[in-house]
Amino acid sequence: MTLRLHNFFRSSTSTRLRAALNLKGLGYEYVPYALRKGETRTPDYLAMNPAGLVPVLERADGTVLTQSLAIIEWLDERHPEPPLLPPDPDGRARVRSLAYMIACEIHPLNNLRVLGYIGETFGADEAATKAWFTHWVCETFDALEKTLSGSPETGGYCHGDAPGLADICLYAQVWNNRRFDIETERWPTIARIFAALDALPAFRDAAPPNQPDAA
Amino acid sequence: MTLRLHNFFRSSTSTRLRAALNLKGLGYEYVPYALRKGETRTPDYLAMNPAGLVPVLERADGTVLTQSLAIIEWLDERHPEPPLLPPDPDGRARVRSLAYMIACEIHPLNNLRVLGYIGETFGADEAATKAWFTHWVCETFDALEKTLSGSPETGGYCHGDAPGLADICLYAQVWNNRRFDIETERWPTIARIFAALDALPAFRDAAPPNQPDAA
Repeated sequence: MTLRLHNFFRSSTSTRLRAALNLKGLGYEYVPYALRKGETRTPDYLAMNPAGLVPVLERADGTVLTQSLAIIEWLDERHPEPPLLPPDPDGRARVRSLAYMIACEIHPLNNLRVLGYIGETFGADEAATKAWFTHWVCETFDALEKTLSGSPETGGYCHGDAPGLADICLYAQVWNNRRFDIETERWPTIARIFAALDALPAFRDAAPPNQPDAA
Repeated sequence: MTLRLHNFFRSSTSTRLRAALNLKGLGYEYVPYALRKGETRTPDYLAMNPAGLVPVLERADGTVLTQSLAIIEWLDERHPEPPLLPPDPDGRARVRSLAYMIACEIHPLNNLRVLGYIGETFGADEAATKAWFTHWVCETFDALEKTLSGSPETGGYCHGDAPGLADICLYAQVWNNRRFDIETERWPTIARIFAALDALPAFRDAAPPNQPDAA
């Protein structure tokens, strides 16, 4: 299977998918798009993904998969080893819940198109944009820290001692936070897990600065 | 199994979970919270869910599940009939992608706490709030309409002829849109699917106006 990953080095959802592909040991062709230049808004791109978003995973037959979390679940079903979700429904619910705290409560508010919109519509300057970004990170990371630190199910990673879906989201979000100089000291469990993930080649190789289109 | 649903009639994520519970034929005790009165920010509520969000599904043993999509996946694993996801990985990826278009691109930007924040921080008045809400709905519903109308996999519902996870998200979002008088004529496929869903008791009984705490 030849896979092509349509993505952008700094995109948090792209980082998630790169980490998942690396964990699964799947090679892929890296196809970069400069979001700020509108390269995902061209007719060709919109024909592939009407939402105009990255990442898109294209398969050898030309069919495509969209939405990072849907693609990661697909990868986990098609390539079960190593698993990115626990085997038991309760564990799976916990990991998905941790992942969605980031994917549904932080990232959608803090991606490039939203930051652009608050600048254009509400005149948010750099300081106001940073305040907006930081507010949504703190709202959820404070709750995530409590959830992780208060649970015996948290191990070396978010759930036990193998990295999975929640770790993938956490890792990508911490990188995203660095764009606004938000460091993780405030959240010791998140900081500890991030450091453990960052020591793994599958994650490190997925990090924004290590991509071919990194500035 | 006795389930308690901690939720709010108008919350879109609560509507999703009510529809899923109804489709599975699972009864539950309805526990309402007035979000505007801060009833999900009390110490007791935060002890149950540190994120302070609805819905929460509490089981007979007092353990809780959070994040609507994680709970719905759990319900689907624990109570497989009728399935809310197709049996094949490609179909599951498609349905999850449609669901996440709504759950990760529209709803997080348009929930009560975000609308409150743009009012307080950027001084958005009613017209500006409506413009914000409408912008994010249209961005994704335009793409969703293209995706649904252009695919032979779309049937009476989002994927074939049985309602599932994507329909649950679509149904809840269309109800949410009505708060700002956004009607669905602009998106004929979405409108058709919503009408089909609204004719099903499982969905109709989950709709905001049909809840005990509806204003």
